[in-house]
This record gives sequence, C-alpha cells and structure tokens, in this order.
Amino acid sequence: MTVAEEFEEANTKYVAKFDKGSLALPPARKVAVVVCMDARIDPAAALGLTEGDAHVIRNAGGRASDALRSVIISQRLLGTREIVVIHHTDCGMLTFSDAELRDIVKKDTGESVDHIAFLPFSDLEQSVKDDVHFFENSPLVLNVPVSGYIYDVKSGKIKKVEDDVEDKAK
Amino acid sequence: MTVAEEFEEANTKYVAKFDKGSLALPPARKVAVVVCMDARIDPAAALGLTEGDAHVIRNAGGRASDALRSVIISQRLLGTREIVVIHHTDCGMLTFSDAELRDIVKKDTGESVDHIAFLPFSDLEQSVKDDVHFFENSPLVLNVPVSGYIYDVKSGKIKKVEDDVEDKAK
Repeated sequence: MTVAEEFEEANTKYVAKFDKGSLALPPARKVAVVVCMDARIDPAAALGLTEGDAHVIRNAGGRASDALRSVIISQRLLGTREIVVIHHTDCGMLTFSDAELRDIVKKDTGESVDHIAFLPFSDLEQSVKDDVHFFENSPLVLNVPVSGYIYDVKSGKIKKVEDDVEDKAK
Repeated sequence: MTVAEEFEEANTKYVAKFDKGSLALPPARKVAVVVCMDARIDPAAALGLTEGDAHVIRNAGGRASDALRSVIISQRLLGTREIVVIHHTDCGMLTFSDAELRDIVKKDTGESVDHIAFLPFSDLEQSVKDDVHFFENSPLVLNVPVSGYIYDVKSGKIKKVEDDVEDKAK
C-alpha cells in the first residue's frame, strides 16, 4: 500500500466532517507564511490557522528566494499584506553544503546540478534575518510587515528573531 | 496587532499541549507531498498527517518544477521514497497568464519580471499530469511512486488523477 492510498483513506474521514465548502479564494487573514517543509512542523496547529486563513508556502529551509514566485502571486493577485518567515531548530539545511549535495547528486545520477542553489545555511538565526531582509529589500515585494521566527522542534514554540537592521517599512 | 502577534498567542496554546519533542528529522512515512499554498487546504487535516510524518512542500499551484530543489533534498538527504502531487479546484493559477502577471508587476513596481516563470495553468487535470510526469521523468528525482490528485475545495475530497502515459517506474 502506498502512502497515497493511505491518504485516500484518511481523506474520507476528513470529508465526512467537512464544513468549509464556501470559503473565498483570497486568504481571510491576508498573510503569507513561509516555513520549512520539515515533517515535524504542522503550521496550522502551531500557529492557530484554520482553512481559509493564510497562504502557507513551504520549501526546504523555508527560504525566501525560493518562495518569491509564490509571494508575488500571493500579494499581487490574492491580496496578502503580511509575511511571516519561520525556520526551525535541528533543520536539515544546517547539515550540508551546496558542494556536498552537488557531489552526492552527481555521484548518484551522473547529472551536474551546479545550476541549482540548494540554499543551505550554517547559522539558523542569521538565516531568518537574511530571509526577512530578502523580502523587505526586494523591489518585487510590497512594503508590508515581515517578521521572522525560529520554531523549536523540541517544544513546539516559536521565538521571534529580532531584526538588527533598520526596517525598510519604517 | 499583526497576524504574527496573533500567531504568537495561538502558539502558546499549542506549546502547552505539545508532546512531540522527540521526533526524528527524516519523515517517518518517507513521503514528500507537493501541494498548493492555497489558504483553504490544510494538508495535515485533509490527508491524516501528524507531526513527523511527511515533508510538505507548498507553492503557488503546487508546481513540481518549483519544488525540485526541495524534493532533491528530501530524497537524497532525508530518505523520502514517494511523492504525492496535489492541485485543487478554484485555484488562483487558473485565473491569469504569465504575460498578465508580468504586466501587473511591471506597472506596479517598474521592475521587469520576464525572468520569472509564474507557472499558471489553464487545465487543472493536465497540470497534475504534467507535474507527475515532471517528477517521473527528471533524472534528478529517484525512481519512486509518484501520484497526482485534485483536491476539491467545496468538499474537502481528494480525487486521483489517473496517468495516461506509461509510468517510467514500471
């Protein structure tokens, strides 16, 4: 049995209790959350989100540059006016370098992936600051509140990363 | 009050009941789910996922090419061995063309975004097939089960999109 088939089974229970059939397309709380794909994070549960509330953009690391396409669509077409960036403790992105992963893929597949920036980081707090600044400084992103957090996978707690650079929006 | 501050408040309730502090980094169910960022979709609730189960990669449309970096990391470094792609009804990606969004951004910001492929689609079922095939045919992606679904925002139900091309993995 594939996990996909397990999803189908689980989904029948969700459908049986579903009562969110008339939600609007634009997010009700006008926020886009950019968060790591990490399996241990359930953004809806951890942040008090319910269906219809927020765009949730997830990628390896919760990196801003990889989320730019989605954020532009979120803001220009669907009206979100705040961004929250969430990275987390014990992140896989802290465990490798671009050169190492490129070597692994090259060895496994014979293909060069020198054209892919895998966006790892060595300093968790700095990575959050960098990604907040990326959104604050991108000319393609609206001048909206951007805040950054670290999610602790041991406690479930989010902790704000204070910005030490003058905020573009102020 | 920003939405971020509301998240902090909601998070204190999550932390008070949190009992998932010892989960491993690699996803327990060895699956990566690629799903749209749409606010109306709660992948954990809809698919029966709990903390620790699965990588959840989300972007505008749930597009495969935009998820490739994350999927490579998910497979090569964190051991996932199945991919599930989920697009959905009433998706914002059905409502615009690359040319239209590029014009909007250019008009609003003065910046050209001709270098960004926003990856809209006009045929929902085809977009799922295209993204399943993208993963099946990429030399950078492992030869694992890939399945595609459409999530119905009116009912919460996922419906499998049957593949009409010979599966690479077979």
